[in-house]
Amino acid sequence: MLLLATKNKHKMEEIKRFVPKDLKVVTLDDLGIDQEIEENGETFMENASKKAVFYANLSSLPTIADDSGLVIDALNGFPGIRSARFMPGTSYNEKMQMILRMLEGKTNRNARFVCAASYYDPKEKLLVCVEGTVEGHISKEIRGNFGFGYDPIFVPVGFSKTFGELGEEKHTMSHRYKAFSKLFSILNVIILAK
Amino acid sequence: MLLLATKNKHKMEEIKRFVPKDLKVVTLDDLGIDQEIEENGETFMENASKKAVFYANLSSLPTIADDSGLVIDALNGFPGIRSARFMPGTSYNEKMQMILRMLEGKTNRNARFVCAASYYDPKEKLLVCVEGTVEGHISKEIRGNFGFGYDPIFVPVGFSKTFGELGEEKHTMSHRYKAFSKLFSILNVIILAK
Repeated sequence: MLLLATKNKHKMEEIKRFVPKDLKVVTLDDLGIDQEIEENGETFMENASKKAVFYANLSSLPTIADDSGLVIDALNGFPGIRSARFMPGTSYNEKMQMILRMLEGKTNRNARFVCAASYYDPKEKLLVCVEGTVEGHISKEIRGNFGFGYDPIFVPVGFSKTFGELGEEKHTMSHRYKAFSKLFSILNVIILAK
Repeated sequence: MLLLATKNKHKMEEIKRFVPKDLKVVTLDDLGIDQEIEENGETFMENASKKAVFYANLSSLPTIADDSGLVIDALNGFPGIRSARFMPGTSYNEKMQMILRMLEGKTNRNARFVCAASYYDPKEKLLVCVEGTVEGHISKEIRGNFGFGYDPIFVPVGFSKTFGELGEEKHTMSHRYKAFSKLFSILNVIILAK
C-alpha cells in the first residue's frame, strides 16, 4: 500500500498514471489525515522530501509526495519554491496576470517547470528523491484551459502552444512526468531486487 | 568517480569499506574543497542529504555524505543531531564525561547510534538516503580506545563491551555499517539497472 500525499486532485491524477497496477494507493483524505506541514525548505527536493517523511511517519505507509513550481530567469528564479504561495488567497488567474505584468518589457522570458518527487519508506528508512525539469518560456498572454496552476502561461521548448493548450500531450513531456517516471523506474528496480 | 564528502578520517575509512573496488573515490581534500555547509537540518537524513547535495553541486560529482549521532532516551534524544556540536571546542573525552554526568542517577540509560547515509547524483538529480540504527545503552564509564566519537560509552544490545572496546567487530554491526551497506546495495541495483 502506498500513500499519495497530495490534496491537489490534478496532481493526484497525474501521479496515479505511474503507479504499478497491482499497487493499492490511498490518499490523505482516505486516511482522514488533515495535518499540514510547513514547506520551509530551500529547494523543491527538500520540500518534497519533508512532505514524504512527514506523512509516512504519520501513516506508517510508504509515501510519495512532490513539490513543483515555475522558475523564471528574468525574475531571478521567482516564483520558484513559492509558486503555490505567491499572493496567497488569489486564484491562479490572478497569479498569472501578475507574472505577465512583472515580465512586461523583459526580452528574456525563459523559464522552466521543475518537479521534485520523493518516496519515503518509514519501515526501511529509505528516501528516494528525483527532480524532473522541462524548459520553455512564458507566453505573452494566458492561453488554454487544460492542466492547472501556471500551465496556461508556460510554452515548452519546441512548441508554440502553452501547457494549458497542449492537452494530453503535456503528460508525456511535463516536469511531473519526468520526475515520476524516473522515480518509479528506480522504485521498481529496488522493489524487484528485494 | 565518487566524492566522499567527509573530512573525518575515521568515517572515511569506515565508508571506504563499502565502495565497490572498481569505483574511483575522491575526497574533499583531493579536490581542494574547503567550503563548509551549515548543518541546520532537523534530522540526520536532512543533514546528510544537504551535505551530499551541496558538495555534489560544488564538484559536479556523484557524492556521498553522512550524518550521525547518539540519541539518549533519558535526555529526550540529546545530543542527537547536535552530537558533534555539543560543547564546541571540547574533546570527545570531555563530551563523554559530561554525558555521564548528565545521566547520573538515571536508571534508563537506553540509547541508540543513528547514521544517515546520502547519495546525490547532480547529473541525474537523484537523491537516495537511508538510515541505520544500532540500539544499546550508555555505560557507567568511558571504556576502550577503538573507534571515535562517543564509541567508548556506547554498549550495543547483546554485548557488555562498548564500541570503544569491541574493535573490528563494531564494523559488522554499527549504525554506519547498516546505513552504508543498505545504501550501496541500492546503488548497486540502480547502477546495474542502467
